[in-house]
Amino acid sequence: MDFKARARELVSQMTLEEKMGQMKYNAPAIPRLGIPAYNWWNEALHGVARSGTATVFPQAIAMAASFNDELVHEVADAISDEARAKYNEYKTFGETLIYQGLTCWSPNINIFRDPRWGRGHETYGEDPYLTGRMGAAFVEGLQGDDPVYRKTDATLKHYAVHSGPEGLRHSFDAEVSREDLYGTYLAAFRYCIEKAHPAAVMGAYNRVNGEPCCASKTLLTDILRGEFGFDGYVVSDCGAIRDIDLHHKVTNGPDESAALAVKNGCDLNCGAAYTYLMAAYEKGLIGEEEITASAERLMEARLRLGMFDEGCPYDSITMDVVESPEHIALNREIARQSIVLLKNDGILPLKGSETIAVIGPNADSKAVLLANYNGTPSRYTTLLRGIQEAASGKVNYAEGCHLFREEDPDGCSQHPLREAILAAKRSDVVVLCMGLDPAMEGEEGDAYNCTASGDKLDLELPASQKTLYREIVKTGKPVIFVNVSGSCLNLCDQDRECAAVLQCFYPGAEGGHALADILFGKVSPSGRLPVTFYKSADDLPDFTDYSMKGRTYRFFEGEPLYPFGHGLSYTSFAENWLDGETVEVRNTGKMDAWHTVLKFAREPHPQLVGFRKVWVPAGETVTVQVRQD
Amino acid sequence: MDFKARARELVSQMTLEEKMGQMKYNAPAIPRLGIPAYNWWNEALHGVARSGTATVFPQAIAMAASFNDELVHEVADAISDEARAKYNEYKTFGETLIYQGLTCWSPNINIFRDPRWGRGHETYGEDPYLTGRMGAAFVEGLQGDDPVYRKTDATLKHYAVHSGPEGLRHSFDAEVSREDLYGTYLAAFRYCIEKAHPAAVMGAYNRVNGEPCCASKTLLTDILRGEFGFDGYVVSDCGAIRDIDLHHKVTNGPDESAALAVKNGCDLNCGAAYTYLMAAYEKGLIGEEEITASAERLMEARLRLGMFDEGCPYDSITMDVVESPEHIALNREIARQSIVLLKNDGILPLKGSETIAVIGPNADSKAVLLANYNGTPSRYTTLLRGIQEAASGKVNYAEGCHLFREEDPDGCSQHPLREAILAAKRSDVVVLCMGLDPAMEGEEGDAYNCTASGDKLDLELPASQKTLYREIVKTGKPVIFVNVSGSCLNLCDQDRECAAVLQCFYPGAEGGHALADILFGKVSPSGRLPVTFYKSADDLPDFTDYSMKGRTYRFFEGEPLYPFGHGLSYTSFAENWLDGETVEVRNTGKMDAWHTVLKFAREPHPQLVGFRKVWVPAGETVTVQVRQD
Repeated sequence: MDFKARARELVSQMTLEEKMGQMKYNAPAIPRLGIPAYNWWNEALHGVARSGTATVFPQAIAMAASFNDELVHEVADAISDEARAKYNEYKTFGETLIYQGLTCWSPNINIFRDPRWGRGHETYGEDPYLTGRMGAAFVEGLQGDDPVYRKTDATLKHYAVHSGPEGLRHSFDAEVSREDLYGTYLAAFRYCIEKAHPAAVMGAYNRVNGEPCCASKTLLTDILRGEFGFDGYVVSDCGAIRDIDLHHKVTNGPDESAALAVKNGCDLNCGAAYTYLMAAYEKGLIGEEEITASAERLMEARLRLGMFDEGCPYDSITMDVVESPEHIALNREIARQSIVLLKNDGILPLKGSETIAVIGPNADSKAVLLANYNGTPSRYTTLLRGIQEAASGKVNYAEGCHLFREEDPDGCSQHPLREAILAAKRSDVVVLCMGLDPAMEGEEGDAYNCTASGDKLDLELPASQKTLYREIVKTGKPVIFVNVSGSCLNLCDQDRECAAVLQCFYPGAEGGHALADILFGKVSPSGRLPVTFYKSADDLPDFTDYSMKGRTYRFFEGEPLYPFGHGLSYTSFAENWLDGETVEVRNTGKMDAWHTVLKFAREPHPQLVGFRKVWVPAGETVTVQVRQD
Repeated sequence: MDFKARARELVSQMTLEEKMGQMKYNAPAIPRLGIPAYNWWNEALHGVARSGTATVFPQAIAMAASFNDELVHEVADAISDEARAKYNEYKTFGETLIYQGLTCWSPNINIFRDPRWGRGHETYGEDPYLTGRMGAAFVEGLQGDDPVYRKTDATLKHYAVHSGPEGLRHSFDAEVSREDLYGTYLAAFRYCIEKAHPAAVMGAYNRVNGEPCCASKTLLTDILRGEFGFDGYVVSDCGAIRDIDLHHKVTNGPDESAALAVKNGCDLNCGAAYTYLMAAYEKGLIGEEEITASAERLMEARLRLGMFDEGCPYDSITMDVVESPEHIALNREIARQSIVLLKNDGILPLKGSETIAVIGPNADSKAVLLANYNGTPSRYTTLLRGIQEAASGKVNYAEGCHLFREEDPDGCSQHPLREAILAAKRSDVVVLCMGLDPAMEGEEGDAYNCTASGDKLDLELPASQKTLYREIVKTGKPVIFVNVSGSCLNLCDQDRECAAVLQCFYPGAEGGHALADILFGKVSPSGRLPVTFYKSADDLPDFTDYSMKGRTYRFFEGEPLYPFGHGLSYTSFAENWLDGETVEVRNTGKMDAWHTVLKFAREPHPQLVGFRKVWVPAGETVTVQVRQD
């Protein structure tokens, strides 16, 4: 019997109240029907998150910078193996708690339309096509390739038109044109749904053109299930249903909010609003058939995950996969491919025998490895440690400054600036590790950047770091600037004054090894920017303006510092296009390396329409197909 | 010309105001006399602190547990080399900021009279003789052995009768008998002064029998400079002079407080109270000759440190000493010797090939390595990492619980408990790393343990850890319990239920290597408890009661869980006393190891009167002199 029919059969034995209960993210057991309690909330953005030890891969924005969707597929496959292994153990407790299940509320395929958005690093960047390709690869990796069962469920989020401001998200109305809606904000959702068939979609907090996303007839009924043919289940963002009456003030109470959401196909509620469904039913706001439809979709999903079957092949995955040597090697590989060389005057790669000053608040930071929505690595390598392990010369470490607190010259706290100046003077070269950390750009409530609820006010380095930067440059030592952040910062000074500039998006537990592999030339850098690096936030429209005009490489009319797709190599390549889809890539330098072929359309605006990353040994030529698929 | 005469000559050229200026910890420059600005405040409790990269040795209480004062001397020698190297670099800036100078406000030789005191881990424990020996070794190591110059200044603190409560320290009056004063609270001060001639003594915040310590005629004039013959300088604790009028209410204002302190020989002020000295002088509260005496003592100290000379041999110490391979090896050695084996049913040492679950909130904690008053290691090894590096079998890590926050079964935060249970079940043996961290026991204002201003309310593990502990024991797997704390906790359950119990005081940057060396039998444990491990705080007098009655092994009349001096080995020893000072120590087991000979007097109360730590190869006999010196 197929899963749809089994779900119908199972739900047909439930009372109305039981059906409503299954629509809560913390679904209770129905022992009579052999249904254990199940908490639907799990996270897997770049590794199984919030569930203890796991391989912590680079943050999503870093994976996007690899421009290697085949590798992202491998990563997602590894993540879902770890999630399965954990679930297989956890379920021996009889029920499944939060962060222990198989339903992953990942990936985040929102468009990083403005660099000030604190959660931008959870996304695959600013381009709908790149986001679609990466999202689809991730979904396929999470869901597996078994013909019968899903390994885990992937959830596309946040549907839709969601990218800050964090502080306003519970009441914000994103006003957007039809062209921007389809051409930008929904494009990756459509791509992923058609290509990868995700099990679920999560509705966003905000409204779009007046309609709350989690209860929007336009977005959910007409477009998602109608035009896009999505046949999975929809889950609300956490607390988003209550926002409809409390903050959006579109309905008059939680019963109305719950009813409106279910009517438009929001099947599962993260939060407590669906406890009002019975009240809504009794008022006639919602009918049993709509409840039944949602319950059936949810039970079908659980059945398809093999939760009620004996023979699911994924049941045999054991904890040996978690942080296995293979996963750690894969982690190092994608971390290497995610680092972007923005400038190099020839100083890189280093010989390794130099005396190196490693300076800056991000040099020995564990937090920048992990980003947000992260697991716990049982072993991790900071940027400093990676350099220490790989260097054959002396390494002088100095923190130099706090990430954002400025030195008080008369205060009794530490004064790290002078140590850094002295360390630089004692060294041949400085690796300066600056930028942000996930406490400075993140989600509302998580981030400590309370001035902007997780968002950034501008694209500047914190003043504490600017002071340190200026003093280090003054020493006259060559500076390799490693910017660690999940978003664009203004690196104009660095581009002018430093010998080399690297963009290291939050790189995961193997970040230090990966950076050292690049610095010392074990591998050539091959990452590309998945976002435009602007010179200033002043070049951008207002943050609350959701029009794409003047945003991203597709519509920006100014001069960026580094464009979308920028990324240097230690070798050189020549591309020879044989036709619109076929290109010969010749490695004209002396080092084997990865190269990414990018194919852009120019009309009506610049638009990435294809890419392919290939390994090309030095001196050799590889023929590549770059299809828009 | 000797330093005293040079100081007199120098000070004779100063105006009264200039002399008063030199009595502030942030002493201004007097360019006319070639005197640069100098900030007296530096810290070196277990490594150069708050001044960037440095070798971070085990916390003071851990060093005491080594019972190896020769090794502590080596550590202090290494620390003062690092302080000198830093000063030699910093002084190129022309002036010397906080934490960049040569005047170390260490060691803390207060008596750890009650395990609830948050700062107890800064001390050498509960015994005056052990504290004196360790303190003297530390002072000698800091000050060096040059016949002319001091390498750095050591400062005995906090003089006197200072050990909590932290929340009351600015107004507290410690009432103490003459017998407890001399027999307990002043004994280590006297010992260190007579044996090691420290440059400085720091006055405490509190009062003793009504007199504020930093302005006490009894403590400073009569006892310290009179009876003990101390001829160095006295510095106030930070802000302590203002406490005299603001909180002790012994004087009527800051001018009176400053005058009273200087009159009793408190030469240097940490804080701002001495800015009132001119007002005090103008009111006739203090005379110029007293100001001159203090200024002379301070300038003599700076002269003796070679600050104004060309030929000081310590000027040639370079930054190569900081975290040198020799210092890192020394750090690992003292960390090994500081770990105390409290119980062993034979499970230790491990073979190394077992599957090991490493569980607990302190397993991968950097904070517990560093304790407080710490520097920054450029490389550190957590307990988990040390075990991972040394084990040949699989290591399953699970944090298990937050250090003190309890799991909310319905909350959206992580639920680490189950992972830990599963990790234990999957393993042959559990290494359970629990205890406190420096945020839970520390100084007023530093510690996050806001319920008690840094002190502990009892000797219990936090409830979150008790829950985890109980669940792990229930798995039936053998548990090696590693208690990481700077003080006694109630380990009665662990003693009864665990296969082995280790006390790991905050062990420094090499802590993980040291623990692994012990667990896997690379070395035998040789640490001894420098404090009594009680069964409960209920067995103790009130925390505010400074009578020694009922406290420490010397006066406690109950049954401790583990007595002062307790510590097991992997081998066995036989002692054969030839006379009151000479003992033959035979290693009757199969492993070379350190052994500590302890010599106690029994009347009028138990009292350690001698100890000596010796290396005894297996099967061999070593003859040792144990003199009370």
